[in-house]
Amino acid sequence: MMQNYRMTIQYDGTRYQGWQRQTSTGNTIQGKLEEILSKMCDKKVEIDGAGRTDAGVHSRGQTASFMIDTDKTPEEIRDYINRYLPEDIAVTRLTVAGNRFHARLNATGKHYRYRIRTSPLQDVFERRYVYHLGQTLDVDAMRKGAELLSGTHDFKAFTSNHRIKKSTVRSIRIEIKETPEELILEYTGDGFLYHMVRILTGTLVEIGQGERKPEEIPDIISSKERSRAGMLVPAQGLCLEEVWYE
Amino acid sequence: MMQNYRMTIQYDGTRYQGWQRQTSTGNTIQGKLEEILSKMCDKKVEIDGAGRTDAGVHSRGQTASFMIDTDKTPEEIRDYINRYLPEDIAVTRLTVAGNRFHARLNATGKHYRYRIRTSPLQDVFERRYVYHLGQTLDVDAMRKGAELLSGTHDFKAFTSNHRIKKSTVRSIRIEIKETPEELILEYTGDGFLYHMVRILTGTLVEIGQGERKPEEIPDIISSKERSRAGMLVPAQGLCLEEVWYE
Repeated sequence: MMQNYRMTIQYDGTRYQGWQRQTSTGNTIQGKLEEILSKMCDKKVEIDGAGRTDAGVHSRGQTASFMIDTDKTPEEIRDYINRYLPEDIAVTRLTVAGNRFHARLNATGKHYRYRIRTSPLQDVFERRYVYHLGQTLDVDAMRKGAELLSGTHDFKAFTSNHRIKKSTVRSIRIEIKETPEELILEYTGDGFLYHMVRILTGTLVEIGQGERKPEEIPDIISSKERSRAGMLVPAQGLCLEEVWYE
Repeated sequence: MMQNYRMTIQYDGTRYQGWQRQTSTGNTIQGKLEEILSKMCDKKVEIDGAGRTDAGVHSRGQTASFMIDTDKTPEEIRDYINRYLPEDIAVTRLTVAGNRFHARLNATGKHYRYRIRTSPLQDVFERRYVYHLGQTLDVDAMRKGAELLSGTHDFKAFTSNHRIKKSTVRSIRIEIKETPEELILEYTGDGFLYHMVRILTGTLVEIGQGERKPEEIPDIISSKERSRAGMLVPAQGLCLEEVWYE
């Protein structure tokens, strides 16, 4: 009998061309997982992921759903997948889900974390998981900017997808944490547009560098013009931490 | 004028054949650093490291000394070295040292950390820095064993160097920390023999698995026989955290 499953996937995105399977021979997380599940079921299996993370973006909480017919228990499916996955991808949780559960369509919120290394010295153990900026930033100004960005807005200026036809209104909250070596930007919200977290971060970094003022934020938002917002920061500082449902 | 320097080096040991330069063409941390310093000074420079970490062992606190004649400031030397180092090695601190300072001979203590992942699930972000055991251990028994190993003993049974002629007496302390996914073994002491931390850890793991009793420890110590002690656990779980002086 066909049964719906939900799984949580952790990955170091460094070596991959992102989450989403590509028509060509791209090396993707979704592709790896589908390959293993298709082998296990001896038929083509497709999975739906909650967040289509870009090339180089990491995950601790990516969530996906898929429907298969198998005699294996959820734990056996998880162990089977993990046995064949490369060491930079792991399924951390796999459970039976209601038949109407869809990881992407049912997601009600997501948490992304962007890490900026402000210390001039690299940390070799974190080198793949931070954006190595190597300079201190004006955190107070950035926090003012983050406050003006938080809330429900049309974020059209903060996406690289120019031809988007669906609504670009999202409700988000940005919190900035500080350690002696890093700034950690916590993004939570009901959804994020293509490149949105990285463009928001780039805009806040430019505020932190004194190149922009936080007071410009409302104008950038209302312009709806990508060119008014800040740079796209590197993918490697970004991690999808959690996906929420219900 | 020749001047003595002291530096702290962080490295992800995964790709290296250990700290110590080899006569052949080995890929070593010491070799990389000497190559860069020799290039900078346009003459052969040799450095002395406090701990000769094995192939695959990591460091956050390796300390080395070297004597050179240069116009550069310590900060400029550090930045020069870091510019040419691969991304898995970094000099985190570099200062002028008294001319009698020798990183290995003057070291009075060291701190090593050994991480054992007890969770059956891998953490992809930590995969290179833990020994993935994947099973829970009897931590109370291990703590009893750690207590019997702590103190001043002849640790000849706990080294792979059978032909050692110098004293094998060392004073150490072992502390075991527990998280839901890991056991973290903290080793501090005035010195450690070749493979000693990894054999001590292997012995404690076997106690945690119920294959040995903590009460056997005094007998193993007094036997001075390598064959009586436990297995050599993998290098990748080990990190040289700090070296003390004075």
